Amino acid sequence: MARRVLRTKVFDVQRTFVRINGKRYPWYYLTGNNAVVVMPLIDKDHVVIEKQYRRAVKRYVYEFPAGRIERGESPAAAARRELEEETGYRAGRMRLLFRGYTAPSWHTEVVHYYLATNLKKTKAMPEPTEDIEIEVVKLDDLIGKRMSRGVIDTKSLTLTLFYKSALARKFW
Amino acid sequence: MARRVLRTKVFDVQRTFVRINGKRYPWYYLTGNNAVVVMPLIDKDHVVIEKQYRRAVKRYVYEFPAGRIERGESPAAAARRELEEETGYRAGRMRLLFRGYTAPSWHTEVVHYYLATNLKKTKAMPEPTEDIEIEVVKLDDLIGKRMSRGVIDTKSLTLTLFYKSALARKFW
Repeated sequence: MARRVLRTKVFDVQRTFVRINGKRYPWYYLTGNNAVVVMPLIDKDHVVIEKQYRRAVKRYVYEFPAGRIERGESPAAAARRELEEETGYRAGRMRLLFRGYTAPSWHTEVVHYYLATNLKKTKAMPEPTEDIEIEVVKLDDLIGKRMSRGVIDTKSLTLTLFYKSALARKFW
Repeated sequence: MARRVLRTKVFDVQRTFVRINGKRYPWYYLTGNNAVVVMPLIDKDHVVIEKQYRRAVKRYVYEFPAGRIERGESPAAAARRELEEETGYRAGRMRLLFRGYTAPSWHTEVVHYYLATNLKKTKAMPEPTEDIEIEVVKLDDLIGKRMSRGVIDTKSLTLTLFYKSALARKFW
């Protein structure tokens, strides 16, 4: 049986034991609320992207709006909420593209990847801990310019590649 | 200053404090060795994929070979080691495609995404805790068949999409 050894706002740490050659070893993994990430498409060639300071990696990272699904909230509602809070755009249409594990070897988290279209400008309301700048950029400039040869945000790259890929049709 | 509050084989948990409206709140994030994931290309239409039991999510997941970079090891050496240990293929060529944060808001981890070509069959040597089956599949069957409408392994999807995308050339 797993036992929670640490509880935080973003994840919990669980400990359980595995048996290898008859010996018991502690084994740790994360649990927590699942998350959403949203690609906001202004028109077929332009997207909204955030430049956000990320304290863990100590730098600004270009990312699509994302966040955790709150208790009792549907993934689509979380996607709409995060999009509007962080960018000030309301989505006329929010479409689930796919769902992926962040790291199935040590985290139960599932991220829901959305495409937001028919956007209307409202008002951004970032949380007090969030340091976010919004840019509207050409889709073709995202990879290579906003997401460059350095380390990129994987979830945003995945969403961009998925949208641009003909493979997307297999999921729809 | 961050302080390590938990140490595990796969990640460490760090605690620091953030100030919001004059009040101090604890804030947790993960650190640890970075990781690699490898797309092993048998020929231009076929790849090696693993079906692996993942205890955190309690199911079998299709994934490319992946693992943690050991202390003192280069990312490319880790990619070669994980590929050979888990699949029994040795790479004639190992090419870095890009590097991405797993979750820059709460983890310092950078994953190095590799393409392995010129493969030679040797002998798989999985670790005792690993439950891995190897399949050679058509690249076109990966998404939609091995990675289906359910929850997929994001790093493997990203690598597949990146390889299939013409955008890949921007990084090379």
